[in-house]
Order: sequence, then structure tokens, then C-alpha cells
Amino acid sequence: MARVNENFLKLRGDYLFSEIARRKERYLQDHPNAKIISMGIGDVTRPLPQAAVDALKRAADEMADVRTFRGYGDYRGYSFLAEKILEFEFAPRGVSLDVDEIFISEGAKTDTACIQELFDVDNVVAVLDPVYPVYVDSNVMAGRSGWPDKSGRYSGIVYMPCTEENGFVPELPSEKVDLIYLCYPNNPTGATISYDELKKWVEFARRNRAIILYDAAYEAYIRDEGIPHSIYEIEGADEVAIEFRSFSKRAGFTGTRCAFAVVPKKVKAYASDGTEHSLNSLWYRRQSTKFNGVSYPIQVAAAATYSPEGREQVKQLIDYYMTNAGIIVEGLRSAGLTVHGGTNSPYVWVKVPGGMTSWEFFDYLLDRAQVVCTPGSGFGASGEGYVRLTAFGSREDTEEAVKRIVRSI
Amino acid sequence: MARVNENFLKLRGDYLFSEIARRKERYLQDHPNAKIISMGIGDVTRPLPQAAVDALKRAADEMADVRTFRGYGDYRGYSFLAEKILEFEFAPRGVSLDVDEIFISEGAKTDTACIQELFDVDNVVAVLDPVYPVYVDSNVMAGRSGWPDKSGRYSGIVYMPCTEENGFVPELPSEKVDLIYLCYPNNPTGATISYDELKKWVEFARRNRAIILYDAAYEAYIRDEGIPHSIYEIEGADEVAIEFRSFSKRAGFTGTRCAFAVVPKKVKAYASDGTEHSLNSLWYRRQSTKFNGVSYPIQVAAAATYSPEGREQVKQLIDYYMTNAGIIVEGLRSAGLTVHGGTNSPYVWVKVPGGMTSWEFFDYLLDRAQVVCTPGSGFGASGEGYVRLTAFGSREDTEEAVKRIVRSI
Repeated sequence: MARVNENFLKLRGDYLFSEIARRKERYLQDHPNAKIISMGIGDVTRPLPQAAVDALKRAADEMADVRTFRGYGDYRGYSFLAEKILEFEFAPRGVSLDVDEIFISEGAKTDTACIQELFDVDNVVAVLDPVYPVYVDSNVMAGRSGWPDKSGRYSGIVYMPCTEENGFVPELPSEKVDLIYLCYPNNPTGATISYDELKKWVEFARRNRAIILYDAAYEAYIRDEGIPHSIYEIEGADEVAIEFRSFSKRAGFTGTRCAFAVVPKKVKAYASDGTEHSLNSLWYRRQSTKFNGVSYPIQVAAAATYSPEGREQVKQLIDYYMTNAGIIVEGLRSAGLTVHGGTNSPYVWVKVPGGMTSWEFFDYLLDRAQVVCTPGSGFGASGEGYVRLTAFGSREDTEEAVKRIVRSI
Repeated sequence: MARVNENFLKLRGDYLFSEIARRKERYLQDHPNAKIISMGIGDVTRPLPQAAVDALKRAADEMADVRTFRGYGDYRGYSFLAEKILEFEFAPRGVSLDVDEIFISEGAKTDTACIQELFDVDNVVAVLDPVYPVYVDSNVMAGRSGWPDKSGRYSGIVYMPCTEENGFVPELPSEKVDLIYLCYPNNPTGATISYDELKKWVEFARRNRAIILYDAAYEAYIRDEGIPHSIYEIEGADEVAIEFRSFSKRAGFTGTRCAFAVVPKKVKAYASDGTEHSLNSLWYRRQSTKFNGVSYPIQVAAAATYSPEGREQVKQLIDYYMTNAGIIVEGLRSAGLTVHGGTNSPYVWVKVPGGMTSWEFFDYLLDRAQVVCTPGSGFGASGEGYVRLTAFGSREDTEEAVKRIVRSI
């Protein structure tokens, strides 16, 4: 008799976004002419950079010709793309990595969800709170938790509150933790981490032989000097950290699909007999067994975002969204709201006014402004009292939404 | 301290193909002018169907226009592709499925490797022997085995020998098994399964509440009437079977990446309290957490293989490879070799002559014919005494390789 993985049964339903959809739907039934603007979704809306589109079409033509046709590629991805990544993402920041430390993949979500497979089920997982749910859910599925409490926190997982008081960068854990998920610029709070703070985490991981799983999917949105773009800018991080990057938010690839994980050869985990094991080798073994690689034409398109035209188009894309973020931040502040993020991140973390809960403010904005946000409590107990707005809409929608919110307050 | 998943340490190295590469390399060092023909790799060589290339380029242009740009898609994939699959893959064979029972994915390898995540670690896994290594390795990584013996068989996994005597379709297991991986047309033996035989397996699974994981990645190569293309042609299979399909071998997508899994809503697994759980819901939960979906332009390209031109081009592609298969089968038979497969499959399973082992015959062919094959023993203990040849080369290479083999015998 086939028995189900009962860890799946611990998962809370896909409550957050289905509840948002349900409330929006109900509102539309009562107000069929309402023009709702969604500021809740973390999906991009601007076209793909033309350099990527042109490259994709050229690569498609290569696939039509027996002389240039490509079958299976290397499980790590094509080195032409890894080399561009090293040249443009890491070398300019003084980070030296090898081509075989880059693993091209289909998404940073997929990578952050699957990386835990390399680790024993008894490792203790620590996450930021509020948190991108995938880090938690993938570990719940694998059996690294008990059941959730009413607030949605799973027993056995260490939640590290990110609050206004600590600038959304938590204290180092006081308990024993083995796998630490960090995400900066942060989803959902839009916070960044300084060199000094990140250094403390790297030192903590080194001291405790813990691993940091560093999600830098929003790195391209960092504008200010003095903020690390990669954890490898911190000395010694290449012995304790795996970093996740994506073309989704950098270059509008959410529907095109390309990302990469950095797994330095020096990063080790330990067996019960005390032996060290390279996570680079283990991840290669995992990927070669459970993944087939990213489509060749898509890898060509991703590489084209590093051409001179591609880089200029990427810059324009990010400028567009960051102008939106600025409009949201300034508009809401001028209306007296307390707002975080939005300066080095496409996410704006808005403190709910007047003692409302996240969901109460969600309903308030839907009713008074016909704007959909994401309730902060959906990202974790410490997100209560906040909502998340995103800068990924069109300029017109963003301006209109901010006007309506300001009017409604 | 981060502890490694020690199940990974049980895995044998990627021995087979690296050992093939090593022996080929050594031969080339000694014979620098040798023109080696590889008949070992399971990768296609002919260009992508033009209909798919044209569609890919059109979809790329859609991504360049804000009005037609696509961000994240549904985790199940686009329904325009699922509908084509239902219309052309299943309806003509009398199989009725719903759109939400099709999960578009990046590869059948990935799906067959990841599906085991839905099941408890204590399920007993049964595989054909010889076997596509991914089914075994993914279960070893998940902890469903002990260590391997000298022949490469892992303790705790049930191996079902496929031999000349049983026509490469094994007897039903006498022991208790919960998850049964079947692959027909088979990789590596090229064998097919009849309706009556497949019916026995479906009845066995129903009787034992086991799940059949049915890999039909080579279904498009079936030429003869009277062979099931889908396990759902068997009544009741939609309560016990998950089926895996791929565009890789059907339409030359090994480097383009698109596949799908069929998870009928009626297929259930059981919790320890006896409750039933729909694998369709669990797989959706797994995919939405650990996968982001296939690139939109690639799904458009896959759908185009079902257009009238696309279907004609796919037919030509398969005809090309199956003509190669015929050349291999006839050539080798005329030389007195015993040959299986190659009539409804791109794989030819050659009995090693003269009492040699698989590796001895590998060396013999490399030395006498400058042809690289895949030793059958690399696919499992019951593959000893066979080698696998593939029909995926060019016509010229295939003809030349067969001539050389025949001359060398």
C-alpha cells in the first residue's frame, strides 16, 4: 500500500493568495464596475529586454539547423552564461568564483526549495519572520518541522523576528541552528543588510559550522553604495554560504525562467562520522539526477542581458520599477504613513495605520481605494500590522493606486 | 553544525558514462586518427521541427511587447498546451483526462526523480532490472534503500529481472511493493509491453493499493498496432498510475526542455490513519513550492508540434530515427547477432556474442569498429551480457557504424 509523505499534510493550504483572490472576487461581485489595481503580486509586467528577445530568436534558429542544433547540455548549465555571470555579477564586486561553482537553473524559488535535500532531516532550520513561504514549506515537506500553531509557525523551525526596532535584520540566534535562510534585499520587507551585519552572520555560521542559504534574488535593485550585493563580499563566506540569484526580477524573466545558484567548492557539510562533504559535489549529484538543465535558447537569452545593449536595457527596466517604488514611498509618506523598503528593493513595507490588522487594512484599501495589497501577516506572525506593496506595475497604475490610497487615508 | 544527507553517500559515482568517456579518451590517445562513432548516448541529433522553431520565435516577440508579455504562469503549465496534449496524445486512444491532470514540466527525468517526494520513506520501491538509473538514485537519495552490493543493487529496493526468457517484461513481484516504476517502450532494452501484460500490472497495483509510475517517454516510437501507448488505455489505471511523457525524444526537445506528467485526480495514497490523499493535489502542492513552471516560449514551441505541420515534422523525425533503428537491427542480425528492440523503440539491445561481458564487448567494438556502445551491465545486474545501441545518430554515422560492427564480428 502506497503511503503518503505525511509531512505534506502539515502544510497549511495556499491560504494567502487564494484568500486575497476570494476577497477581491467578492468585492467585484458587489461592485462590478470597480477598477481594481493589484499592488500585491510579485510579478513583473514590463517586456523582456530586446537584447534577450533577439538572442532567443537567434538561438531558436540555431536549433533548426543540424550543424548548430543542441541536445542535452551540462547539468550545471552552459559555461558561456556562467562566464558572463562571473564577469558582470561578481568580478566587479571583488568576488572571485569558478565557472563550476555556478549552477544555472530554472528559478531561485526552485533552488531555495530544493537545496535542503542535501541536508539531513535533523538539521535545525532558522528563517526570518516575516518570510518568503517557500523556505519553510520545502523544509516542512522534508520533515524538518512539526505542525503549525495558530499563527502559522511550525514547531521545530526557528523564527527570527524582523521588526521596525531591529531594522528588519534580526539578532543572531541564541539557540543551535544549522541551516539559516537569509534574504536581502528582503522579500517582503524591502530591507537591506549592511556589510557589518552580514559579517556577523558569516562569523556566526563559521563558528557554528552552520550553512547560510542566501537569497539575493532582488540584488539588482540595490541603488545605494555600501550595501553588499553578494554574501561573498564578506571574507570567509565562501566556506559557509550558498547564494541564489535570478533573472526573474533583474531582467523580467518570471515567465521566461532562468536563475542560478552559487555553490562554492569550499562549502562543506558534515557526516555523523565527522567527515566533510563538498556541497558543490552533492548539488551536482542532485542536479544531474533530479534536473535536466535550462533550455539552450533561454540560456542564450539570459547571457544576452549582459551584452552592452542588454545591460542598458536591464538598467532601464530596473529604473522603471524603482521610479514606481519612489512614487509609492513618497506618496504614502506624504499621507503620513510609515513606510519601509522601496529604496533598494521593489517592495514597500507599509505600517498599517490606526491599529488595524493586516487583513483589516487589506479590506480597507480594497473598499476605499480599490487597491489590492498583500497582508503582511500572510508572511509570518511578525508581519502582522504591515502590508506589502510592489513596484512591478505599470507607471499609470502605480500613480493611480498611490493617489487613491492617499485619498482614502 | 550542518549535517549532510547521508543517503547521498550511498550513491555509486556517476560511473557508467564517465567510465565510457575514460575508455574512449584512452583509445583516442593511442589512436589519434581514429574516427569514433558514438552509438551510446541517448541524445537526439536532428534539428527541432521547424513548426516549433517558428512558434518559439513568435512567442519571443510576444515577450517583447507589453500587451502580450507573460510573467509567471500556472504551476501546472498553460492550458493551451495541456489541451493539445489531451487532443492528440490521449483522445485518439480513447483516454479521457482533464486539463488539470496534466502537469507541464521541464523533463520526464526530473518528474520521475521528484515524484517519490510525495511518498513516505518507508514505501518499498520496485524497479525493472536493467533500469534507467534515475528511478533508483532518486529513491536512494530520499532514504528508501540501504547500501549497494558489488553488482550495484541497493538493499531494500526490489529489482525485477527483465531477461530474454520473459521478453523483458518481468513476473509480478511476490513480495510486498508499494511504488512500481515501469518504463515501456523500455530504456535500455527497447522492449514493449502488451495490453494483457500491462493489465496484469494495473490489477496487481489495484489489489495491493500500490502506485505504478509509468515512464512512457519513448511512446512516440511505437509503430505496431496492439501496443498500449498510455497506461490509461487499461481500465482502472487512472486510479493507480502516474504517467510520464516527454517532448525530448518525441520532438527533439532534449536541449529545449519540455515534458509532462499525468496525475489523475483519482490516484490516491494513504496516511497512517487510513485516510486517502489525492496525489494530484499533493503534486500540485509540490510543484507550486519546488518548481516555477516551463518558460512560456518553450510551451508555445511544444504546442506547435501538434499543429498539422508540426505533427508531420514530428512524424518525419521519428521516421528518420526508426529507419536508423531498422538499419541497426537488420545489419546486426545479418551478422548473426541476437538483437532485441529497435522496432517500437529507438534502443537496440544487443546480446554480446562469444561469452564476453558487456564491458569486454564494449572494448572489442571500440577497438575493432571504433564504435562506442553502452554496456548493459551499467543499467543493472540483469543487463550483463548486453550492450545498448541507440538510433539517434545521423544516417551516415549509423550506416557506417553498422558496417564496421558487422565487419568486426
